Amino acid sequence: MMERFPDNSRMNVHGHPTRTIAPLPDLSGVSIIDQTRLPFHYERVTLHALADAAEAISVMRVRGAPLIGATAAYGVALALNEGIELDRACTLLAATRPTAVNLAWALARMKSALAHLKTSEQRGAAWAEAAAICDEDVALNRALGEHGAGLIRVIAEMKPGPVNILTHCNAGWLAAVDWGTAIAPIYAAHAAGIPLHVWVDETRPRNQGASLTAWELKQHGVPYTVIADNAGGHLMQRGQVDLCIVGTDRTAANGDVANKIGTYLKALAAHDNGVPFYVALPGPTIDWTLDSGAAIPIEERRGDEVSHVFGETEAGEVLRVRLTPEGSACANPAFDVTPARLVSGLITERGICPASRAGLLGLYPERHS
Amino acid sequence: MMERFPDNSRMNVHGHPTRTIAPLPDLSGVSIIDQTRLPFHYERVTLHALADAAEAISVMRVRGAPLIGATAAYGVALALNEGIELDRACTLLAATRPTAVNLAWALARMKSALAHLKTSEQRGAAWAEAAAICDEDVALNRALGEHGAGLIRVIAEMKPGPVNILTHCNAGWLAAVDWGTAIAPIYAAHAAGIPLHVWVDETRPRNQGASLTAWELKQHGVPYTVIADNAGGHLMQRGQVDLCIVGTDRTAANGDVANKIGTYLKALAAHDNGVPFYVALPGPTIDWTLDSGAAIPIEERRGDEVSHVFGETEAGEVLRVRLTPEGSACANPAFDVTPARLVSGLITERGICPASRAGLLGLYPERHS
Repeated sequence: MMERFPDNSRMNVHGHPTRTIAPLPDLSGVSIIDQTRLPFHYERVTLHALADAAEAISVMRVRGAPLIGATAAYGVALALNEGIELDRACTLLAATRPTAVNLAWALARMKSALAHLKTSEQRGAAWAEAAAICDEDVALNRALGEHGAGLIRVIAEMKPGPVNILTHCNAGWLAAVDWGTAIAPIYAAHAAGIPLHVWVDETRPRNQGASLTAWELKQHGVPYTVIADNAGGHLMQRGQVDLCIVGTDRTAANGDVANKIGTYLKALAAHDNGVPFYVALPGPTIDWTLDSGAAIPIEERRGDEVSHVFGETEAGEVLRVRLTPEGSACANPAFDVTPARLVSGLITERGICPASRAGLLGLYPERHS
Repeated sequence: MMERFPDNSRMNVHGHPTRTIAPLPDLSGVSIIDQTRLPFHYERVTLHALADAAEAISVMRVRGAPLIGATAAYGVALALNEGIELDRACTLLAATRPTAVNLAWALARMKSALAHLKTSEQRGAAWAEAAAICDEDVALNRALGEHGAGLIRVIAEMKPGPVNILTHCNAGWLAAVDWGTAIAPIYAAHAAGIPLHVWVDETRPRNQGASLTAWELKQHGVPYTVIADNAGGHLMQRGQVDLCIVGTDRTAANGDVANKIGTYLKALAAHDNGVPFYVALPGPTIDWTLDSGAAIPIEERRGDEVSHVFGETEAGEVLRVRLTPEGSACANPAFDVTPARLVSGLITERGICPASRAGLLGLYPERHS
């Protein structure tokens, strides 16, 4: 039940295999995509300092649990370039966003790789460790993509026509170093020639679906249709969704998942309509210290992300416009928690398991305490 | 369990009691609010002809089940002014939007009032019948508001602080001739001094919450907070919603309700969290010919309502901007059906009843066939 990615199926941007984050050859900076400019402009920018990395995470130039972790790791390397102490760099980076556990995981890993070294050795080791984190992310996502594609194959064999997959937010290539999490199975299935079509939730308020998922599926030639977040339940009632796959920013040890706000509503609709609802995650997204999702910190972002939106005019100008009456209060919780009871299964680099403590421990037996 | 509206609580715009639709004194036209320009500009426009009325309904200058019905009634009067035959006018108006049953209801009522008259008498009778439909709408909504406010009073007495009410789309003053449906209980409770706060779903893709509900609550001084449609489930999980009230465009005889796309998702979340979920409707919104909601026609609107959005720039210019990559396919179902099992009760002008055939027949015994 595993599909192999063909070797020629790397994520391409404008025809070239590309990673979302990469160090400069002289290790003086880190190249990222400024994702706040997509889908209107594909622009790479260079982070030169710790403050650049922290800002890029906070304002979501980079986002997505795995990519936040990778950027934080390189943020430590940039800090050491500047002569900023390891602990101070980690404290600053840890405060940028609260929900994705990959941030804390990557920083803990950097600390454990570097803390015992002499200051003179830390700098080189930091760049090496950040690169290792990135290479591992690619390998994990490739493996989970192959496991998830097996699931898509099973559905494809049970029905005529394309497999209709609904996804929320962006848990694709842009959310990781390569391949993505929730979208990795879609890329693997597409590469294997399985006919499919993706329902892309636009994912208000930041529109990661409409702007990022749509953009990367288009780059890769995967058929998709953008829908308002409100539409998914109706499509499921009408039998137009065969499978939901979403990502997660933090998975509790019992299988509860925190993901982009609105995920819980889609999980409820999937449950109500008997549509399989899967969550894709690399191992570092599991928070083994949490017994349930209730304790996951939920980021509250600025209200103007709800009241205002960026878009492109007919003349090609990218502008920010206000949608609400002036002075309207707006609330903006960025994530919600989907309880494990609504999750059909977790797709990981080690295989697919039930969303439960027993299920996770079956794949990660080394976590038996 | 009924709250009286104080007599000074009429809906005001810029301080003046105002209806959303009104005939010109000389019966040469009908004044409406161009709701596509809200919340940025409050502008009344005049419909002079049948084609104006049909266009206003299609492009949603007027929207909301009761106001669609009222506009269609006046559309018939405008047609007769032009010498267009009654049947032809009704056929044209009936085709403007498929889901709200008030449209068909109002046209059937106009036909039954006018068809037996001589052509020379039809014109005057049409203006009188349309005015009667409007006056009745105001009375029905006022009564259902008073019943619904009793429900809000019960919740207010059970908890400290304001009652937090979530609503979806706009089923307020702007959706009716006056008062509204789902928001009428909120206005009645507010007028009675019950402390409350409204969570306003922005309601993509047309943003009726962010643009219309927010605007009218602001005009009326009712505290509110705009949220992305994705946020309601999370707020319910956290105990931040005491009650949901929504409108409906068509209620089947078994209590299933068709309402703005996304309503079903909020009903699922309310059910999952034990939050009361009520639907407010005047009698003409009930389709007694339908045994269930499965047969309600769901309007599919243009995809560019999803890919593009109107907003105001910092310079005060109202513009349309694109959110998705150019050429993205978009799907735009405008309504969904919430099954009666998820509805705590129906708030009508005759009182509150269970969402079931028996419940509805208890309030409308004349419908026993």
